[in-house]
Amino acid sequence: MAVERIYLDWNATAPLMGAARDAMLEALAMPGNPSSVHAEGRAARAVVEKARREVAGLVGAEPAHVTFTASATEAANHVLSPAYRMGKSRVSLGRLYVSAIEHPAVRAGGRFAADKVTELPVTPSGILDLEALSAHLAAHAAADGLPLVAVMLVNNETGIIQPIQALSAIVKKFGGLLVVDAVQAAGRIPLSIAGLGADFLILSAHKLGGPKGVGALVSRGETLMPEPLVRGGGQEKGHRAGTENLAAIAGFGAAAREMASELAARNARLTALRDRAEEAMLSAAPDTVIYGRSEARVGNTSFFHLPGLKAETGQIAFDLEGVALSAGAACSSGKVGASHVLTAMGEDAATGALRLSIGPATTESDIDRFVAAFAKIAARRKPTGQAA
Amino acid sequence: MAVERIYLDWNATAPLMGAARDAMLEALAMPGNPSSVHAEGRAARAVVEKARREVAGLVGAEPAHVTFTASATEAANHVLSPAYRMGKSRVSLGRLYVSAIEHPAVRAGGRFAADKVTELPVTPSGILDLEALSAHLAAHAAADGLPLVAVMLVNNETGIIQPIQALSAIVKKFGGLLVVDAVQAAGRIPLSIAGLGADFLILSAHKLGGPKGVGALVSRGETLMPEPLVRGGGQEKGHRAGTENLAAIAGFGAAAREMASELAARNARLTALRDRAEEAMLSAAPDTVIYGRSEARVGNTSFFHLPGLKAETGQIAFDLEGVALSAGAACSSGKVGASHVLTAMGEDAATGALRLSIGPATTESDIDRFVAAFAKIAARRKPTGQAA
Repeated sequence: MAVERIYLDWNATAPLMGAARDAMLEALAMPGNPSSVHAEGRAARAVVEKARREVAGLVGAEPAHVTFTASATEAANHVLSPAYRMGKSRVSLGRLYVSAIEHPAVRAGGRFAADKVTELPVTPSGILDLEALSAHLAAHAAADGLPLVAVMLVNNETGIIQPIQALSAIVKKFGGLLVVDAVQAAGRIPLSIAGLGADFLILSAHKLGGPKGVGALVSRGETLMPEPLVRGGGQEKGHRAGTENLAAIAGFGAAAREMASELAARNARLTALRDRAEEAMLSAAPDTVIYGRSEARVGNTSFFHLPGLKAETGQIAFDLEGVALSAGAACSSGKVGASHVLTAMGEDAATGALRLSIGPATTESDIDRFVAAFAKIAARRKPTGQAA
Repeated sequence: MAVERIYLDWNATAPLMGAARDAMLEALAMPGNPSSVHAEGRAARAVVEKARREVAGLVGAEPAHVTFTASATEAANHVLSPAYRMGKSRVSLGRLYVSAIEHPAVRAGGRFAADKVTELPVTPSGILDLEALSAHLAAHAAADGLPLVAVMLVNNETGIIQPIQALSAIVKKFGGLLVVDAVQAAGRIPLSIAGLGADFLILSAHKLGGPKGVGALVSRGETLMPEPLVRGGGQEKGHRAGTENLAAIAGFGAAAREMASELAARNARLTALRDRAEEAMLSAAPDTVIYGRSEARVGNTSFFHLPGLKAETGQIAFDLEGVALSAGAACSSGKVGASHVLTAMGEDAATGALRLSIGPATTESDIDRFVAAFAKIAARRKPTGQAA
């Protein structure tokens, strides 16, 4: 008998929401290229610009400051560049500072050479070490160019929210630029680029119910911009060449619009579901370790370790029970390794942890199914110390 | 009364074909991330790998040698790089040679500095000047690194087919690498990467009936590969990071499969339609200039100049008659300028030319409608010499 599947891996990718699907179907039926001047082209252009307003609305930005990319990863490679432009003048950025818990797309350092990237430590509670940031920026060799700091607003594994405003104050004090990876935050907590004190935000559509294949780089202004990563035709005001991904952009816009509305109510419901799952886990296996529980976290994520169960084994066990969740990030083909996030937090990451992440379509019954699977898997663990 | 629209701008972007739409809808309903190891992730992975086989099949390549990108433009920026890798060793390419009629995505030179890009002339008939290529490669400073040559198989404006095999023989004689932009050729003429003698092919889904937002870089082997343009997670075997654009990739695969079948019959039908349009144009306005008519061309394209009619004015006039066609390439937002292709062919490009480009859904009645609009517009031209 086939087991009905329960999808609890929304931080890896969220199922496409209905409004996004509808917007995509409409766009897929349009024949034109948004760069064409005929009626079909102008209609396609209007779809792109509507989506631009919708995405801007989600993060309190000007539509003109939204550059669509193919992914958050592309946006990261675009903005993490030593070469910027202020009008026609070139501006060099000297060094990139990234936190030790960033997503691989940011940790890879974009267009900076590896020896121009400094990793910033986090505290055992998973928060960026602000004193270390200050010390690094104080020691920054300004003659080589401005410092660029890139930190995520919400960690993809733990769901912990970083103190971006305090961090921004430090970056600004030292004259640096701040890039905030808001991929796991957008649609989950209210956010505004100005409120955060960020110069750039990185967004992904498919983490918030839009389609895969589109992201955005959002800027606070237009004065200082990175050199284009993808050059060619003059699309996206010259910032990013290539025919616009019309349907995906339309879907991104629709998802952003939906996620901007009723955010508090949705978040409260998800937090309650997640908290119920965590209480049930602790009840079924009191030795369960839940990371970041005492920190500010988004409401949809739970990152936990069950002593005696390797994350890889656990993920397969849940999969066999019909429950899709993940061991760390789904960022590279099938690879399940030690979590660099746990390592950065000073945890013994050898056995890893599992991530439950939920979304608007998650139901109480999904949580019940998860809890039942958890109890079953926890009960058949080998005694602690003999990781299976 | 609303005029029924006729879309004759397939070289700008082709309407999505049914098979591609069906494949996309199926993929959009799948919740998983292709990098996740659970059942949902594995199902998504299978969709990507099926499409990879289908795209490989269209160009006679190994599936393992297809790297999906967000666009042909991204593929061009990826492959046009001075930095390559052979296993773990770095290999430098010294100079990029591009023809003067390349698409802006290639003419921009990718990651080469502007002073490391040489433009190769074409003959007045729009064919790459092979003697000039030989002379340039003979003078290439080999100590700076291998030469990289990038030439399109089919020109996007004229439809003229370049003699890639002869060109490849010259490039190989001088130890260079050859990149072939096959965007306007794939699905229109039979092609194989080995038969062409190309090291790399650039493909775009939306020019052959797939969706916007996905392209591919196809390589002949895996020995010598460009450094990644987009870094982060290990997707696409480390060649291109970012969550795969599942639905668009599925649509690309389906379109490639469809276009690979019955190519000769479809091409014959389109060529007959295009030839009928050209004969009718010459009959209605015998002074019409049709570019590349005596050269080998793809069957779906006609690039023409009507003396006394500026391309920009002509495009608007056709648009008002309900006919979508273009003045040059739709590669940058709304810009209608002089055609660099005509300039390279030594034509007086000031008044520009118009491009009719058709596809599988084009009917005889569409051509009739075009011809009627053409006759009307031609009749009301100002006398030659007073371009309107």
